Amino acid sequence: MLLPVPLQNLINALSRLPGIGPKTASRLTFYLLHASDDLPNDLAEALLALKSGTAYCPICFNITAAGREMCEICESRDRSNGVVCVVEEPMDVLALERTGGFAGRYHVLQGALSPIEGISPEDLRIRELIERVRAGGIQEIILATNPSMEGDATAMYLRQQLLPLGVRVTRLARGLPVGGDLEYADQSTLLRALAGRQDMN
Amino acid sequence: MLLPVPLQNLINALSRLPGIGPKTASRLTFYLLHASDDLPNDLAEALLALKSGTAYCPICFNITAAGREMCEICESRDRSNGVVCVVEEPMDVLALERTGGFAGRYHVLQGALSPIEGISPEDLRIRELIERVRAGGIQEIILATNPSMEGDATAMYLRQQLLPLGVRVTRLARGLPVGGDLEYADQSTLLRALAGRQDMN
Repeated sequence: MLLPVPLQNLINALSRLPGIGPKTASRLTFYLLHASDDLPNDLAEALLALKSGTAYCPICFNITAAGREMCEICESRDRSNGVVCVVEEPMDVLALERTGGFAGRYHVLQGALSPIEGISPEDLRIRELIERVRAGGIQEIILATNPSMEGDATAMYLRQQLLPLGVRVTRLARGLPVGGDLEYADQSTLLRALAGRQDMN
Repeated sequence: MLLPVPLQNLINALSRLPGIGPKTASRLTFYLLHASDDLPNDLAEALLALKSGTAYCPICFNITAAGREMCEICESRDRSNGVVCVVEEPMDVLALERTGGFAGRYHVLQGALSPIEGISPEDLRIRELIERVRAGGIQEIILATNPSMEGDATAMYLRQQLLPLGVRVTRLARGLPVGGDLEYADQSTLLRALAGRQDMN
């Protein structure tokens, strides 16, 4: 009530971000009020460019810069085509890349199966994954969905779909903490999980 | 390196906010990527309007909407002119207003004296406060600067300047945790601090 509308608007907008409550939103707003002119403008520009400047790679469906034919990983000639690591989200690609333990390609599902949230196979990039396998040249699919209920269900579903195609299907080793989120795993845990991956027969 | 430039730009800009590290900035960025179009745009608009839409009240130097002659508190006819509460920042006004225990006017210094940070009396709205007292009609000045070293030094300095003007000068009671920040105090602590204010003679 006592706050000028422009401040209240920014506090409201910041409060819609995950993990940011009204108190943190107020702190950030008052900080931005005193900050150099650059910061609010830089932030606003970056926000406006976020969606217009990005696109999904048409091969692996990772996030990439708009206007590119494919993402840097799909384009790279130094990576093996025979192994494809299937993850839920772009951030999972980043987490795996940070380990330096994987030199194949990726496939980003853009989510996981979840009957509760109404996410079915058609909502994920599963058809596109099967097409990639059918096109040939892939010997192994590493299922690196989260070690959660949804991630496990997605892995089981993909296993059913992929095994008949004659490809080897593996799952990241259970070095990952169960119920956790892949992107929070530390690098050595992720490395061990990569190394200890198991056949799904 | 693997992130598209628009994502990296937003992560960098968010990381410049206090309390937001690169990891949180990444989370927020990927959240915004999937969020409805409204949220990034609403945030950007609010950021751009932040400085252009706000101004300082020419009487108390609190933040107010741009274009107003004075802020709502200075304008109100239901408040007493005889008592002025002096605070460091606009957020401190909010904290005191939330207690419902003060019905006078405010004066926002816009900081506190700090030789280390090079903040001297001329950098604060002290001259304007003295002018308000000289203009007459003020019986009491409540010094509600933070109970920190800088806030105490500022209060001591203001006491020296104000007592010769024949005004009563009080300081919020030491119910406040020493070394803390006024805006974090809970309402009952602030109420007791208001009620137990002491004369500075």
